[in-house]
Amino acid sequence: MSSIKQLSRPVPPGGTIGIIGGGQLGRMLALAASRLGLKTCIYNDTPDAPAFQVTQQSLTAPYDNLVKLTTFAQACDAVTFEFENLPAHAIAHLAERVPVRPGAHALAITQDRLSEKTFVEKLGLKTAPFFEVSSAQRAREAFARLNGRGILKTRRFGYDGKGQAKVASADEAAKAFDSFKGAPAILEGFVDFEYEASVVAARGGDGGFAAYDPPENEHENHILRRSTVPSRLGAAKVEEAKAIAQQIGEALEYVGVFAVELFVGKDGALLVNEIAPRVHNSGHWTIEACACSQFEQHIRAVAGWPLGNVVRHADAVMENIIGAEVDAWESLAKTGALHLYGKMQARTGRKMGHITRIRAK
Amino acid sequence: MSSIKQLSRPVPPGGTIGIIGGGQLGRMLALAASRLGLKTCIYNDTPDAPAFQVTQQSLTAPYDNLVKLTTFAQACDAVTFEFENLPAHAIAHLAERVPVRPGAHALAITQDRLSEKTFVEKLGLKTAPFFEVSSAQRAREAFARLNGRGILKTRRFGYDGKGQAKVASADEAAKAFDSFKGAPAILEGFVDFEYEASVVAARGGDGGFAAYDPPENEHENHILRRSTVPSRLGAAKVEEAKAIAQQIGEALEYVGVFAVELFVGKDGALLVNEIAPRVHNSGHWTIEACACSQFEQHIRAVAGWPLGNVVRHADAVMENIIGAEVDAWESLAKTGALHLYGKMQARTGRKMGHITRIRAK
Repeated sequence: MSSIKQLSRPVPPGGTIGIIGGGQLGRMLALAASRLGLKTCIYNDTPDAPAFQVTQQSLTAPYDNLVKLTTFAQACDAVTFEFENLPAHAIAHLAERVPVRPGAHALAITQDRLSEKTFVEKLGLKTAPFFEVSSAQRAREAFARLNGRGILKTRRFGYDGKGQAKVASADEAAKAFDSFKGAPAILEGFVDFEYEASVVAARGGDGGFAAYDPPENEHENHILRRSTVPSRLGAAKVEEAKAIAQQIGEALEYVGVFAVELFVGKDGALLVNEIAPRVHNSGHWTIEACACSQFEQHIRAVAGWPLGNVVRHADAVMENIIGAEVDAWESLAKTGALHLYGKMQARTGRKMGHITRIRAK
Repeated sequence: MSSIKQLSRPVPPGGTIGIIGGGQLGRMLALAASRLGLKTCIYNDTPDAPAFQVTQQSLTAPYDNLVKLTTFAQACDAVTFEFENLPAHAIAHLAERVPVRPGAHALAITQDRLSEKTFVEKLGLKTAPFFEVSSAQRAREAFARLNGRGILKTRRFGYDGKGQAKVASADEAAKAFDSFKGAPAILEGFVDFEYEASVVAARGGDGGFAAYDPPENEHENHILRRSTVPSRLGAAKVEEAKAIAQQIGEALEYVGVFAVELFVGKDGALLVNEIAPRVHNSGHWTIEACACSQFEQHIRAVAGWPLGNVVRHADAVMENIIGAEVDAWESLAKTGALHLYGKMQARTGRKMGHITRIRAK
């Protein structure tokens, strides 16, 4: 068995954090690392990545180029990710050469909706009913076991509603599976929730845990539109939500920031929808409303530093700026804390930035 | 007369802001520009500048290398400075090629303590008594006109107490002048103030003005130790301080962020000590305690964007981390919002970082 590199001591100021993925999450992670006096090296599979603009060191290569991954590992004191879909053999290759946080185990479980849901269920946490689907026939059979509505989702590589289809009949379920062109899937029972919330939390290398206040999240066209803190969750439910995140973080032996997306039932029940093993769009408000943002918190955990202060000192509403909405940047700049991601093309559905409006508590 | 480039429209997201000087101020300006989706190009006279770590584009050349300044101007949509001491002919060279903010006029006045003090006096604002000193003999004569104590300061290139000497006799004044090796100087009368404060303010290209709450500043060994908001200034004096800054900003036709350092007399009188035509160490707390930091505000003004919100949503204490104090980074990281500047060598008196502790109001 190959050896896995561990951090023997914190990465000191002046050290280099490697970030795989150069989108807006990588960019905001790099900005947070810079604040702490840490250097960054960004690895992205295409040039002109938004995060390349904010660092001196970057590498462009396919995510499974082992030669380039070796070069990258040698340039870094610790490595992390802005997304969870790196191939397992690439993660293993990196982990033999440089401390990688979160680790391969946590990524392997959360990369795959089936293993993730199974993991959540085994922890005794509530989740939507789900069934493995590996053929059109299995899709029909699974649908028959639901209460009339479901969502077929590819097991891997889904985000912002991609690789998902609502289905209301066995025929639709079979047709949706075929449209995924053979990709392994799961069929989830439709959950008639009251609203969505999420817990953005961090676990340190020492097992320490810190969770931000859970925001309430609104989606439009499967894309996050708005996160609001405080949410409608009362104090007891907030603690329950944080405890769910802590249980998940510990079971994954997780190091870094992660998010647990929750459905809040009409009866107040909290169902785990998804685990994101990374900083999360619903945590962007922490940049303004907390002393330590989710991005800084993740870098602290990855670098072996003490976790920062997650106390929320202001109420906040974060809204995404999507596609052509960014054309209004000049008027948006008058109304809140504006973040733009350095993306040159404003395609439909593309997250171009976000704006956070805070109000002292 | 050569033409001066003006901004005909705001620099759009994706545009490039040039920053002369790659120290911690340049670094924090670059981080703020990145947040707004603007690219940066840093010009510094030595390699390994702290700000180089946080941008994709940088240039190393002497500050009066007109060929490199031309290249720099061509790469940028607008140019600004982290410090005020660029040679006048270099500024003029830049200003013919790219919009430069603040402009040559404001820089020329504030580069020179004599012209700055004369300017302040002509505005009818209070300041310490001052005399031009161009020889040891003039130093003696000037000292005779003071009330027994003074400070001899070089007219240019002073910071953090460099190029300054307290003098308590005509002999000491003459000796101090000789120690400056012929550099033109001014002798200022000693002011027996109660405490120091500062106004960090911004003026937009449209003449709009916005001032942050004035912090109270404590120095040690001529270096800022601590800035605290709110200060001991009452509401009326806060308004008076902001009005002084506005008067100065308008008279300079200033565009960008600047600071006015004030002595607060035992009788509450506000004396102008110094004008800094740039973001200022006493404004670092705005990163945590305001929706728009002084760094973002400066970038907004330079880029022709609307000024941001300067309302302070929390009380704050900012402390500099100086020299070997940075060795305690790991314990400091537990106690507040830590900023480290990416400087590799912790020389005595060198500003290595700062820490801000906020408390909801």
